[in-house]
Amino acid sequence: MADGDTLAELAKRRGFFFGSVDAYGGVAGLQTYGPRGASLKDNVETAWRDRFTVREGNQEIEAPTVMPESVFEASGHLDGFDDMLVRCPECDGAHRADHLIEDATAIEEAESLPTDEVETLIADHEIGCPACATPLAGQSVEEFNLMFETEIGPGSGDAGFLRPETAQGIFVEFPRLKQYARNSLPFGVTQIGPGYRNEISPRGGLRRLREFTMAELEQFVHPDDDGPSLEPVADVSLPLYSAAAQEAGEGIRELTPPEAVAEGVVASEWVAYYLGVARRWYDQVGVDPDRLRFRQHNSGELAHYASDCWDAEALLGVGPDGEGGDWVEIAGFADRGDYDLSKHADHSDDRYTVFREYDEPQTVERTTVDPDMSVLGPKFGADAGSVADALETLAERDPDAFDAETVTVTVDGTAHTVDTETANFGTETVTESGEHVTPHVIEPSFGVDRTVLTLVDHAYREDVVDGETRTFLALDPAVAPTTAAVFPLVSNDDQLVEGSTALARRLRERGLAVTEDDSGSIGRRYRRQDEVGTPFCVTVDRDGIESDGPDTVTVRERDTAAQVRVPTTDVPDEIEALVDGETTFAALRDRYEVVAAGTTEP
Amino acid sequence: MADGDTLAELAKRRGFFFGSVDAYGGVAGLQTYGPRGASLKDNVETAWRDRFTVREGNQEIEAPTVMPESVFEASGHLDGFDDMLVRCPECDGAHRADHLIEDATAIEEAESLPTDEVETLIADHEIGCPACATPLAGQSVEEFNLMFETEIGPGSGDAGFLRPETAQGIFVEFPRLKQYARNSLPFGVTQIGPGYRNEISPRGGLRRLREFTMAELEQFVHPDDDGPSLEPVADVSLPLYSAAAQEAGEGIRELTPPEAVAEGVVASEWVAYYLGVARRWYDQVGVDPDRLRFRQHNSGELAHYASDCWDAEALLGVGPDGEGGDWVEIAGFADRGDYDLSKHADHSDDRYTVFREYDEPQTVERTTVDPDMSVLGPKFGADAGSVADALETLAERDPDAFDAETVTVTVDGTAHTVDTETANFGTETVTESGEHVTPHVIEPSFGVDRTVLTLVDHAYREDVVDGETRTFLALDPAVAPTTAAVFPLVSNDDQLVEGSTALARRLRERGLAVTEDDSGSIGRRYRRQDEVGTPFCVTVDRDGIESDGPDTVTVRERDTAAQVRVPTTDVPDEIEALVDGETTFAALRDRYEVVAAGTTEP
Repeated sequence: MADGDTLAELAKRRGFFFGSVDAYGGVAGLQTYGPRGASLKDNVETAWRDRFTVREGNQEIEAPTVMPESVFEASGHLDGFDDMLVRCPECDGAHRADHLIEDATAIEEAESLPTDEVETLIADHEIGCPACATPLAGQSVEEFNLMFETEIGPGSGDAGFLRPETAQGIFVEFPRLKQYARNSLPFGVTQIGPGYRNEISPRGGLRRLREFTMAELEQFVHPDDDGPSLEPVADVSLPLYSAAAQEAGEGIRELTPPEAVAEGVVASEWVAYYLGVARRWYDQVGVDPDRLRFRQHNSGELAHYASDCWDAEALLGVGPDGEGGDWVEIAGFADRGDYDLSKHADHSDDRYTVFREYDEPQTVERTTVDPDMSVLGPKFGADAGSVADALETLAERDPDAFDAETVTVTVDGTAHTVDTETANFGTETVTESGEHVTPHVIEPSFGVDRTVLTLVDHAYREDVVDGETRTFLALDPAVAPTTAAVFPLVSNDDQLVEGSTALARRLRERGLAVTEDDSGSIGRRYRRQDEVGTPFCVTVDRDGIESDGPDTVTVRERDTAAQVRVPTTDVPDEIEALVDGETTFAALRDRYEVVAAGTTEP
Repeated sequence: MADGDTLAELAKRRGFFFGSVDAYGGVAGLQTYGPRGASLKDNVETAWRDRFTVREGNQEIEAPTVMPESVFEASGHLDGFDDMLVRCPECDGAHRADHLIEDATAIEEAESLPTDEVETLIADHEIGCPACATPLAGQSVEEFNLMFETEIGPGSGDAGFLRPETAQGIFVEFPRLKQYARNSLPFGVTQIGPGYRNEISPRGGLRRLREFTMAELEQFVHPDDDGPSLEPVADVSLPLYSAAAQEAGEGIRELTPPEAVAEGVVASEWVAYYLGVARRWYDQVGVDPDRLRFRQHNSGELAHYASDCWDAEALLGVGPDGEGGDWVEIAGFADRGDYDLSKHADHSDDRYTVFREYDEPQTVERTTVDPDMSVLGPKFGADAGSVADALETLAERDPDAFDAETVTVTVDGTAHTVDTETANFGTETVTESGEHVTPHVIEPSFGVDRTVLTLVDHAYREDVVDGETRTFLALDPAVAPTTAAVFPLVSNDDQLVEGSTALARRLRERGLAVTEDDSGSIGRRYRRQDEVGTPFCVTVDRDGIESDGPDTVTVRERDTAAQVRVPTTDVPDEIEALVDGETTFAALRDRYEVVAAGTTEP
């Protein structure tokens, strides 16, 4: 357990992550991953890809981060992707007006209020600037679009935006992607890459960034899809915090995906399936199950495109006393229905449907209209064509309207009435071999940066070794930035240095991430590796030299600080087996000489 | 061998890459990687990371793609990152003026000409718009900055730019990165990620993109560094095309890195080392050695910051007759000297040096001035301090100036003369334990997209199987998008379908990229996999079913279309061994029943 400041200090000092461009005063909301953090993040992305793309049989694509205005006009981001901005008249500081309201009042979702109401609330509650305390009453509250804007092409080029989510790069290419899936539902498409939100007031560290990395999966399913088999996740326990439980002041219920669906807690079987896959994946990469929950959005916070959404939330920043901490969203699992594909179908000329053949051809009745244009023409002039189209639409939607003697349609706001006879309304029987359907979308969307932050936060440990307090990160070997550190016991003994370098090379040839270090005392070097979460340290010492090379070396386990003496030739195989989970350090203790007992088993 | 159009058609049809946002008319210079391309690209990035980061013992970081103006002011991109733009008065098309000159005249590097000279050349040569042929004489030629500009923060936020290279995100953080390297040179820092150039007229496909992926390595070395040991690359043959050879109209010389350094063809041992590492890496991922060369920049094309640069170039687009093709830059290896770190040191308050301790403390003579301020004060007023500073700088630079009776310094353009006696010039002897040095930078910088394009281009093959012409991509199993395809021979036999699905799952559990396909004839499915470069196809057929599951299946090799019958339980091990290069298909032919002889060995 560690509070945020302790973690941020460790992250900067040890090269996990830090505020970017410090040399020029820094930029809020931009962070750079140092060597440890970049490696950890890459391992997280690889583990995500392995789980959500390769093993699920989905397909990954990579679309540009800069996209033209037309895409975001269709997706709704151009109009609706706003936060409420209020500026301080004194210090010019920019603040999120809804957050100020939430901090000063009992209102929980100020985001959904109209701006004039927010202005009134600021005045009524005498809210001041968080930076300089100047009263903000009378300042206008404006909707600020969070997309970064740029221009594509020279001079007064076309407007372009940095994508606020990777998803649109998938949706917009659906007409081609469905061909790669051979027009067969369900299929899933994933993407890992940067997303951008020009936050009004970004928080520090990795919690709220202006540039971040997302790992998203768009599962395209038939609207009548029965859902996937829940058998592969039937034994996973989901810590569910439903909207109903939140409202009733109840707590978390642990249910398996099949139970959650059977009890109606999770409506979509696809959502339940991916919650199960995610829960198991979080376990695997090292999220503490006791600090993880799945919280359902209540109707007020649900995005306009989603019919249901569950957030994965991690408890972060719990202090050493076990107190404090916040639940932070690290992923969302949304049922987006046909919103996205319908929008792109409306705004472009492309087809965002798949054709599904019926088991057997079906005979259906279809309404027809065949208006007498020799009547409509003289009567409506240039509008005659539009009136005919409107009659056709009305026939599909409300055939009963043609039972009366006249029928009325509206074109560009003007009502036009025609004799029903003129419309030539009728029905015809046709045989259809299938139908064009707009797929629905289930979207598991992961924040990679916040996942990295969670892994570091949940891995933080303090204990006592040899009478000294020690800090270490108990990162899983599968994601730890460095798998093994290799040292000569002292740096002024050529034989030890050469033996150490040669062993490090052999470990690297196995594809393991290896670091070498010969500066400072061996104790300091162990502490350094503990702090960056290196699971194993290998030391070449004089005791291990019998012939001309190191015959044996010591291997130290991070979590217990125990050491065993292992023949040098066995080291690559043993480390690889430890990383792959094919052996344990306890097994090494049994097979080799224990040279340091370490702490009790963690 | 395939021309560009054939490749582009295959790339789009098979999901390698295609123009983005086709549904809204497309955007020049933006491409989306489909499932095959994204997988191939990810494999290339992983192979690069393994070679240039992990095995070289370097450290990878990840910096934001959006950076503030201050960074690019220092780096020189704000002023110097321009292309020459000329607009057509008729069709408003934007064109690169230097390219028009090069196409119409014998001039080879029009980029280095001043804009007024380019305007004159356009008029003199009666150059017309490439799109509509309207004469461009009289149109102004302007420098257009290629960085995408945006604003960071709400409202009139701070200017920000999409980075034109990943390198600045490394350079600007040097003060912190050197701490992670424990202040010890040499050390290398890598980064893989997007870069952006708002090209005036991007070409089609992956050749010239507005958004692209770079893999860059910044090797920081001491200015007096002796270079790395060339022993690890001593047997690599470099196809070198030096500036001297280009000028003399000579061809490529094959030299090893030690030979290239000894003969003075490559000046920097670090550059020679990384050329060797790169040449071997290109072999490994599948660049055809006969279509690869390293071409040295001549003095005219050398960037202002580089003292030497070699481009890796690949020959792309050679037609089926072996004719045609262009040499395209796929990487650069530049000696950037201390340019980058000095620039950031000048523009920021941070320290871009490392302290190097001498072997023994050194005694040095240092000049001193101690001006009599009671004289300078009354004489120069507010400028007195600046005059004193200028005297100090002069003393360091040109101590002989103090031999005369008066000494003159210039402050803000004004010359000030003082009596030498007033300056109190002298020397002192000090003992120094080391020195602050600005490291030099050697930069291997790879274009990932063009590498992907090269692999697809060089892997393209046509041959004849069973009397039919077949197209296949002979991609290396280490980078191929899919390692194995698993099929039931027919899709209406439940036992075959279940056996196939189970085998696919077992292969995926080994971390292999597996695809399943049961649509169309088995012949069509093989052709489909051949075209995406899948090295192995596994088919579950009736012949293999003896007990209740498939006991044996056929395994087909892409390059020869030969098939052997392998026990199902052996398949995961055999495929893994084939991918790791631990066995060959020829060995499988010896050990198992050959059920299809295929073509002769390729």
